[in-house]
This record gives sequence, C-alpha cells and structure tokens, in this order.
Amino acid sequence: MNKYNLETLKSGILAGDRFVLSKALTLVESSRKEDVDLSLQLLNSLPYTDASFRIAITGIPGVGKSTFINALTQEIIKENYKVAVLAVDPSSERSKGSILGDKTRMSDISNLHNVFIRPSPSRGHLGGVAKNTYHTILLCEAAGYDVILIETVGVGQSETQVQNLCDFFLLLMVLGTGDDIQGIKRGIMEVADGIVINKAELFDEKLLKQTIQMLKGSLHLFKREMENWDTPVMSCSSVENNHMEDVWKMLKHYLEKSKENGFFQDQRKRQRAQIFDEHMRFLLWQSWNNNATFLSEMDSYRREVMLGNLSPFEAAGNIMKTYFK
Amino acid sequence: MNKYNLETLKSGILAGDRFVLSKALTLVESSRKEDVDLSLQLLNSLPYTDASFRIAITGIPGVGKSTFINALTQEIIKENYKVAVLAVDPSSERSKGSILGDKTRMSDISNLHNVFIRPSPSRGHLGGVAKNTYHTILLCEAAGYDVILIETVGVGQSETQVQNLCDFFLLLMVLGTGDDIQGIKRGIMEVADGIVINKAELFDEKLLKQTIQMLKGSLHLFKREMENWDTPVMSCSSVENNHMEDVWKMLKHYLEKSKENGFFQDQRKRQRAQIFDEHMRFLLWQSWNNNATFLSEMDSYRREVMLGNLSPFEAAGNIMKTYFK
Repeated sequence: MNKYNLETLKSGILAGDRFVLSKALTLVESSRKEDVDLSLQLLNSLPYTDASFRIAITGIPGVGKSTFINALTQEIIKENYKVAVLAVDPSSERSKGSILGDKTRMSDISNLHNVFIRPSPSRGHLGGVAKNTYHTILLCEAAGYDVILIETVGVGQSETQVQNLCDFFLLLMVLGTGDDIQGIKRGIMEVADGIVINKAELFDEKLLKQTIQMLKGSLHLFKREMENWDTPVMSCSSVENNHMEDVWKMLKHYLEKSKENGFFQDQRKRQRAQIFDEHMRFLLWQSWNNNATFLSEMDSYRREVMLGNLSPFEAAGNIMKTYFK
Repeated sequence: MNKYNLETLKSGILAGDRFVLSKALTLVESSRKEDVDLSLQLLNSLPYTDASFRIAITGIPGVGKSTFINALTQEIIKENYKVAVLAVDPSSERSKGSILGDKTRMSDISNLHNVFIRPSPSRGHLGGVAKNTYHTILLCEAAGYDVILIETVGVGQSETQVQNLCDFFLLLMVLGTGDDIQGIKRGIMEVADGIVINKAELFDEKLLKQTIQMLKGSLHLFKREMENWDTPVMSCSSVENNHMEDVWKMLKHYLEKSKENGFFQDQRKRQRAQIFDEHMRFLLWQSWNNNATFLSEMDSYRREVMLGNLSPFEAAGNIMKTYFK
C-alpha cells in the first residue's frame, strides 16, 4: 500500500482511475491501523454529492441476480452512464466457486471501461459489511460512477442494513412450484420499491400475468414509502434481453419522481442519520461485548431467564447495578 | 401502599384475590424506589409456569377490538377458564374518553368474577410499556388466569414488542373502501398467526368471501413462524355474536398444536431471552443518553452526518474515541 499516499489516492479517484479506485477500496476494507487512518483521511478529503443513483438488487439464490445485473447494466450504459456493481455478502459461508460463477455471468460487462465490478467485500465483524459497503459506495461515487448496483443475497437480515444504503430496493423473483415464492422472508416484499420477475422466458405468459396481478393485489395492502408510488411489478428475461429497457425506464421514473418531490434527498439524510445512530449503538454494545466478565454474566443470567426463574427485566437491571453503581 | 407487604401481596395473588392483584399491578407500574424494590421481591417470590395462553389482539382504531374482546371472552369463559384483559397503549395521546369508551364496549364481561380487566398501564419511559405489560402478565398468570388477552393499537412500532409477549398474534380487520386495508402498516399482516375480519354483519357475504380468498392468497407468500400452520383468515360479528366460537376454536387448535410440536415452549424461551437482550441494550443505551455531554456531541455529529460532511461510521468512531480512550 505504501506507494499510495493521500494525494495520489485522491487525485487518482477523482480522475476516475480504476486501478487507484481498487487500491482505495482494499484500503478501506483493511483493518490494519495505518490503513484505517489513511482511509479515513481519504474519505474526508473527497467531495460528496447526492448525484448518483443507488439501486439494491435482492432475491433468493437462483433467481438470476448476476445475469440480471449483466443485462440491466448494458441497458444503463447505452445512455453513457458509468455503472459500479458491488456485491454484498453478509454470510461467510458463500463458496469461492459461486463468486467466480458470478463473474462468468457478468461476462458482457466485466471488461467495459465504464463498468466497475467489485466482488464481495471482506466480511469481518458484524457491522463490517454495512460499513465497507457504504464506504465503497462513497468512493465509487467520488470516482464518477452514476449508477451503483448493490447485489445482495435476499435471505438474511442484511436487507435492513442495505435499505439504509440505497435509493431503490428492487426485489427479483422467479416463478416456480410456489415454493420458491413462499421462500421469501417475511417483510422483504413490503419494503421493495419495485418487483421484477426474472427468467420470464421459462414461463407461460398467462401464468406470468396472473402472478403479476396477484402480487400487485397483495402489495396494494401496504403503505408505500414514497407517496404516489405504487410498487410496480413487471417481468423480464435477462438471458434473452427482453424488457430490460422497461426495467431501466421504471427505475429512472422513480429517480425523477423522488427527486422532484424531495423524497430522494430526505431519504438520504434520514439514512445517514440512521446509520450513524445504529452504528453508535453497535459500537457501544460491542465495547461491552469485549468485556469477558460482562459476557459471562449475561450468559448465566440469560440461562436463568430462559428457564423462567427470573424476569428478563430484573435480570437486565441486576447487571446494570453491577456495572453502573 | 404500605398496608401491603410481600406476604399479603403474595398470598392474595395466589388466592386469586382481584383487589390484591390490582394493588400489585399498580405497585409494579410505579417508579418510586420502595415500590420498585417491593415489586421485584414480589415478582421473584411467585411461581411461574407456562400454563397460560397469551393472545395479542391488534388492529387499527375503529376495527372493534373492545367489542371483539367482549364477545370472545364470553366464548372462552363458557369452558370455565379465567380471562384477563390487558390494554397496551404505547402512545401517550390516547384520550381518557376512549378508555372509558372501551369499558362500555366490554360491559358484558366487566363485572364477571372470572374476568379481570386492566386498562392501559402507565406509559412512562420508552421500554416501560413492554416491561409493565410483561410483569402484568406474570402477575395475572400467578393469580390463576388461564387466558390473557392483550389489546394493542395496531398502528405503531409496538407490534414487535408485543410479539415477544404473546403466544398468538391475532390481527383484526374490517372491510372498507379499500383504504382501511391499505392503512395497515407494512409487516403486521405477515407476523399475524391468524386474521379475523370483524363487523361481518355490515358486509355482503360475497365480498367477505372474496376478501378472505384474496388475503389467504397473499399470505401464502410468506413463511409462517410455526411449521404446518397456514394462517387462518375468517370473519365474525362481535356485535351479533356470530362465529365467535369458530375464532375460539381456531385459537385452541393453535395452542394444542404448538404445545404438541414444542413450538409453544421454545417460543416462550426465545421470547424471554430476546426480551432480556433487548432490555439490556436499551438500559446501556439509556445510561449513555443520561449523559448530557454525550447527547450534545451526538447531536452535533448527527448534523454533520446528515449534511453529508462526515461518514456516519467515522462520526461514530470519533465519539467512541472520546469516551473509550
């Protein structure tokens, strides 16, 4: 890392130098003391605007996220936008094989000068995923990327974290035996700003239409985040490049509308404040969890609480008395 | 309070003395130092079992919760069960008038010896609602109440709190212009263990059937908490006492099934552990928020973060450096 100092990193990123950007991202993900110091200086020295469009793309494994991103990106760059693709993988179990697999599925875009692909950031500690991803987004934006596509595995709790990082939350689905759809974790469908059924080429048009109607009907039950925005439900084929322009049109429509009515700007402010508050609580909680005595006391109280020998509130109160006399 | 000591309270509750129970509940809600001490001693001295059935009943204002509870309770006591009705009201805005209103709507049950009604507990600080309600439940259980009905206003964030306090989460709905249904907060429908459409007497049977089918269809999309439990959707008329026995049958069926497959017992253990962990985090966070310097520093950093001048993660890190050198 030592070839790069604050100035070379900063000027390289602002010039849109992909190689320097890569180096900076590695720096930001590092936990070495000197790297952390330098990356904070770097993050502070860059100008931030709300000019980019951050789109999170989620869906269960097998839904075709990488292929979808491959096709969507080609649509976006037609308009001369620069696109950064980031993968967020909160689980540590993901095999190396599947990361390589993703690269293959993005072969059409992986060598373009206006597309930057960054695979899964280092996982590290809890809270690290959101932090790394957030800083990666900031650096990509400083490097001039107009659209940031954030790919997440839609199976975990990562959704709430990712929601705070994006302007648009897109849920990718496929049709199946019905089991596929049931597999969606509660609550994900309701936070989606848009739903796209992928792999349309595999399914009967009538079934697709029915499903879209059914989904629209059930989504109707929920309050939307942005006023006057009815969550669109549409289908596309990433493989056959079908209806990808409709998806991009829909996304652009949301961006335009949300900037017009101020929702976009307000949401970004709210997100920043929320990330700050949450991370603060996380750090305070973490500082306690580095305390072995505290942890073992928590464990033994929790056991009593689970057995029903002690009220959870009393147990928590007792621990507080020990530490805050 | 001083007429009552630990022994008189304990023996009174165990004997099912309603007057003593009321006194004990007031004690538990008090924040006076000596009351808190005595109530903790009391809570510790009582035996706890998982014998009761805790049912949370939620729905937007106007859905007829009190009338529903009035009718359902009459169904339950036919089988010689003792019923406690608790109202949880997380908002401080609720008018005195509406609390009195509830009492009127529960006139059929408000004077029965086997039914105990406790209006909204004192609100106090954040976290206090859950704490008061939880301790109220424990005391009612110790006093021999078999079924605890917990009425909540289904408009706020109280649902997650209440979820941790109940065995069954029942969502009450009405039909309307469509707007009524849209008003449901995202995510509430998905956590319901059962949905009941109230005020069936007001609506066309065909429309009711259609709505039930539609709801069932959309619920099909979500993973249920308990295996092999498809969230039932039914309708009833609390005013005309129609189909109340079906609602109670459904609830009993859930109880039986969940005890058989162990879900009931596991869920109670999980709930206790979760309440404990959450309350611990809350108390730690609270202890920081009593620190005026800390708070004002949080505020000024949050402003910078919202303006985009500072990364949320860096801001949080800076505060930690100040307090944990």
